[in-house]
Amino acid sequence: MPSSMPAPATPTRLSDLGQRARLPAVAALMAKAIETPGLLSVAAGMTDSATLPVREFVEAAQALAARAGEPDYLNYGTTQGRAGLRRILAARLRFWEPELAATDLESRILVTTGSQQALYVAVQSLCNPGDIVLVDRPSYFAFLDVATSLGARPVSLPYDAEGRLHEGAVEELLADLRRRGEIDRVKAVYLVSYFSNPSGRSLSEADKAMLGRVLRRHGLVVPLLEDVAYRELFFDEPFPSRSALTLPDWEGFPRLYCATLTKPFSTGGKVGWAYCTDATWFRQMLAIKGTHDFGSSNYTQALFELILGAGAFDTHVPKVRRGYKVKMQALHEGLLEGGLRDLGWTWDVPTGGMYLWLRAPAHVDTGMDGAFCAECLKSGVLYVPGDLCFGDRPERNWIRASYGVLPPDQLREAGRRLAAVAQRFAR
Amino acid sequence: MPSSMPAPATPTRLSDLGQRARLPAVAALMAKAIETPGLLSVAAGMTDSATLPVREFVEAAQALAARAGEPDYLNYGTTQGRAGLRRILAARLRFWEPELAATDLESRILVTTGSQQALYVAVQSLCNPGDIVLVDRPSYFAFLDVATSLGARPVSLPYDAEGRLHEGAVEELLADLRRRGEIDRVKAVYLVSYFSNPSGRSLSEADKAMLGRVLRRHGLVVPLLEDVAYRELFFDEPFPSRSALTLPDWEGFPRLYCATLTKPFSTGGKVGWAYCTDATWFRQMLAIKGTHDFGSSNYTQALFELILGAGAFDTHVPKVRRGYKVKMQALHEGLLEGGLRDLGWTWDVPTGGMYLWLRAPAHVDTGMDGAFCAECLKSGVLYVPGDLCFGDRPERNWIRASYGVLPPDQLREAGRRLAAVAQRFAR
Repeated sequence: MPSSMPAPATPTRLSDLGQRARLPAVAALMAKAIETPGLLSVAAGMTDSATLPVREFVEAAQALAARAGEPDYLNYGTTQGRAGLRRILAARLRFWEPELAATDLESRILVTTGSQQALYVAVQSLCNPGDIVLVDRPSYFAFLDVATSLGARPVSLPYDAEGRLHEGAVEELLADLRRRGEIDRVKAVYLVSYFSNPSGRSLSEADKAMLGRVLRRHGLVVPLLEDVAYRELFFDEPFPSRSALTLPDWEGFPRLYCATLTKPFSTGGKVGWAYCTDATWFRQMLAIKGTHDFGSSNYTQALFELILGAGAFDTHVPKVRRGYKVKMQALHEGLLEGGLRDLGWTWDVPTGGMYLWLRAPAHVDTGMDGAFCAECLKSGVLYVPGDLCFGDRPERNWIRASYGVLPPDQLREAGRRLAAVAQRFAR
Repeated sequence: MPSSMPAPATPTRLSDLGQRARLPAVAALMAKAIETPGLLSVAAGMTDSATLPVREFVEAAQALAARAGEPDYLNYGTTQGRAGLRRILAARLRFWEPELAATDLESRILVTTGSQQALYVAVQSLCNPGDIVLVDRPSYFAFLDVATSLGARPVSLPYDAEGRLHEGAVEELLADLRRRGEIDRVKAVYLVSYFSNPSGRSLSEADKAMLGRVLRRHGLVVPLLEDVAYRELFFDEPFPSRSALTLPDWEGFPRLYCATLTKPFSTGGKVGWAYCTDATWFRQMLAIKGTHDFGSSNYTQALFELILGAGAFDTHVPKVRRGYKVKMQALHEGLLEGGLRDLGWTWDVPTGGMYLWLRAPAHVDTGMDGAFCAECLKSGVLYVPGDLCFGDRPERNWIRASYGVLPPDQLREAGRRLAAVAQRFAR
């Protein structure tokens, strides 16, 4: 067939998953951001630019190159991840959860390409299309994308306006699922339990324990994915709650503790990790990860092994914490200075993490295609529309504003710009 | 509930995929290898240890650290991959396929965590459980694992003993699929078309073109995954065949050209890439990749961008080629010296790639649990059992022997050991 003959116009037949997949809504926003000069973006949840650990990375690279012997780090590692790195991660886990009874933690640690990959593999391993994952309300939008792209259905846990979970409300949700014949479709629970994305809130130990009790009472001893990406990013003190790994009310639940080295240090490094309490589940996730890529980059793992081993990580993170506290204040004050509180907007002042979660008056539609978002773009400020952060029944009057990237003065200005737009939408 | 109460013995309920996932059979072998001192392994397809580019990596890391301006490479990049890197990859693609008519190739390039991830995302995007992928015979076992873990069924193309494809045989296969009512389940074709894993063979341009013609004649204008991982690893000259990207008989087929920077350079770097001819398919793969990890490590991508841009990659690869030619000879000669040919074993002498594909007499069972494999382990040599490399109807008298890792003298010795065991199994 000559190459001048027109190609047949057969559309590519995609799988169910291939058809379901959607580019994240925020990707379109980010594209707008790039096209708009002078835009201040509080959308992306990236690491602070000013404190990125340039020196730490290059020193680790030099130390690797200076090593005698075979440069194993430039060859494939194992699917599970470098043993030396896993030993360090196990020691860190024991520091955070000193009551952990299990020994040999490193044998149940999986190193992943960011904690996102651990979440993906976990949902793949647990959920068939149509299955349910119980999630925070609001929840992390990238996780919601994982769940829905795999055909699972996020169902929100009944948080109240203060971010508390009440036993009665959880009981009611589960009873309702049972009435609808859906209780058996619940295959997992996903919690961002420390300085959550997007709410900045942490789940109290009492509420977390209660959730375990109620689930067990309903026969739902299902796997828990506890995402602790922001646990180390407290401002002054760690949030005073144990992980579900050591809460007696969660004993017997298969639990996956999903953590990351990159969020508090450098998102370009892209090394996450997860610890699993259940042998069978862990083995199957390892097998799935093997088919994905048979192991994340051995080189970046080796860099982090050195950076952690040399103490450079733990020297660096406190600087990041202090920086984020200052930057949160700057954004918060910019919003106050712009008079946003007086317009009926409300938000908590977080004690860690990277986000302010702003609630607008009910009549303000902050959605991506709405007038408010368009006005903000015109005024030079970009945020993540809050409706993307709801697993079900989205509310359209929320904004996620990250103070991760911009320096304090720009955050203050971004806050003022946002408030100025809100003035125009006030009733 | 007190923590002393025994945990309920509810087994974790896994998804269909979670239940299907299997740790690769070779993983068990590798574990044996680690436990066996003095073992010479020709199993793993890793990069040559002696020529690993230690200097190239550290120089790139130093160059990055010395850069003025924001260290963007330590923050998230895009899901698609660094623009600068994609521009370089596009230029390389144009070098290999000068007849490519498309412009703006970089907009259809996806950077992945090794080419394995590109293969995974591709199969996810195309195949529902029960769908069929046509594959080489033999085919790359890690791809077969991807397909079967996602519930797809590999069906072998009818290669003859010399590695040729004949029109009549392909016709017959497709007619047979049609008779069985399965022709509509064929959703993709997967070819390792240059110095294949495991056979070391390349598909002639004539045979590749014929395959496109016959598929089209049967209405099977389905996506082609062309895996070119070893294309640059020729010994003396590139294999003289265009990719399906520029073969007129493949025009109109959605095609994914799956390549890697790590196989010919450093498998620890773990940067692969794929170029796609189809806009819709590409967008959906990008969306899936976004849910996996929203982008591979930006840091390793930046390193490769520099290593390629500075010419260090192209200076290094010829050394690797020369080394592999010498090492292939060493293994080949070791086998000959051990008298393997005289025992009725046959193999081609490849002109590139990393593998010898040895055919034993029919009565020799080279399977992992067989006596032959056990004897080899006792004698200090480990290989990949060939039966793992068949998409269907596995043959049990083949061996994949890689000359990638060991130095020449050890490869020669490994060849002798293998031949010595074969002597004991001769009839």
